[in-house]
Amino acid sequence: MIGLQFLKSHALFGGLTEDEINNIRPLLKDETFTKGDTIVHEGGQAGKLFFIYNGSVEILKKTDTPKGSVQRRIATLGVGDTFGEMELIDVQPCIATVRAIENTSVLTLSNMDLYKISKSNLKTYTLIIMNLAREISRRLRRADGLLAGTLFSDQEKSDQ
Amino acid sequence: MIGLQFLKSHALFGGLTEDEINNIRPLLKDETFTKGDTIVHEGGQAGKLFFIYNGSVEILKKTDTPKGSVQRRIATLGVGDTFGEMELIDVQPCIATVRAIENTSVLTLSNMDLYKISKSNLKTYTLIIMNLAREISRRLRRADGLLAGTLFSDQEKSDQ
Repeated sequence: MIGLQFLKSHALFGGLTEDEINNIRPLLKDETFTKGDTIVHEGGQAGKLFFIYNGSVEILKKTDTPKGSVQRRIATLGVGDTFGEMELIDVQPCIATVRAIENTSVLTLSNMDLYKISKSNLKTYTLIIMNLAREISRRLRRADGLLAGTLFSDQEKSDQ
Repeated sequence: MIGLQFLKSHALFGGLTEDEINNIRPLLKDETFTKGDTIVHEGGQAGKLFFIYNGSVEILKKTDTPKGSVQRRIATLGVGDTFGEMELIDVQPCIATVRAIENTSVLTLSNMDLYKISKSNLKTYTLIIMNLAREISRRLRRADGLLAGTLFSDQEKSDQ
């Protein structure tokens, strides 16, 4: 089972006591992927949260170009990073594909197990949801910042 | 006091019972702004959630251009829309300025009152946090979609 220290240091478990984390540990499943494996498919349903504890992944997003639909890397994630938060929160299809860049090990927490936590310990569940929401919010801040710069630079160009 | 029907129809109160909404109603403060008023300052602290129930606002974000720092409209919001979610969740400075485009009335729910809800009724609080997180997640999906298109089109240009 994964070490308590790794989980304690993770933003997702921020605010949780050791006892609360220990209650969650048995729910976390260990999954390993080989370099090149697709872990999550854009448009599919993952229904779980992923924590990377070994290796790294790339986030790929399809987009239409004049040359047809292409898949481009929009980010890479490494040890300590998570993915699948948004899908867990809003129960929508996966926004991007996630592929292992190297042999990668993850811990997963399923939507169903998160639901069980909500029934057995609402305080723990609320803290986890709050932490997930903070992570999504941090990502939106970054995206908005990038977007403002990009859209504005386009507006500037067309203004000239 | 604002009508129960308006609140019931609001995504933020999704999943809450009428009794739960009625417990929150007295906490909502009514604020009115005149056309042109700045409601929230980018970089400032709002510490509350805003629901527009009359009027409309524009979201302005500062960005650096070769001509210096400019403030550009990145979105407009109207009746039924909310702002301030991210700041409430991640307790960071406001990501943008919000200005009334016309005379505008909002209901606000302060961070402090949300905290009180967490102490008096954890289930209500959890549902509100979940709904806030869903809204932020929806916005991130939109931003990521826009960003993928914009960044990719830039990459395509530089590829040629």
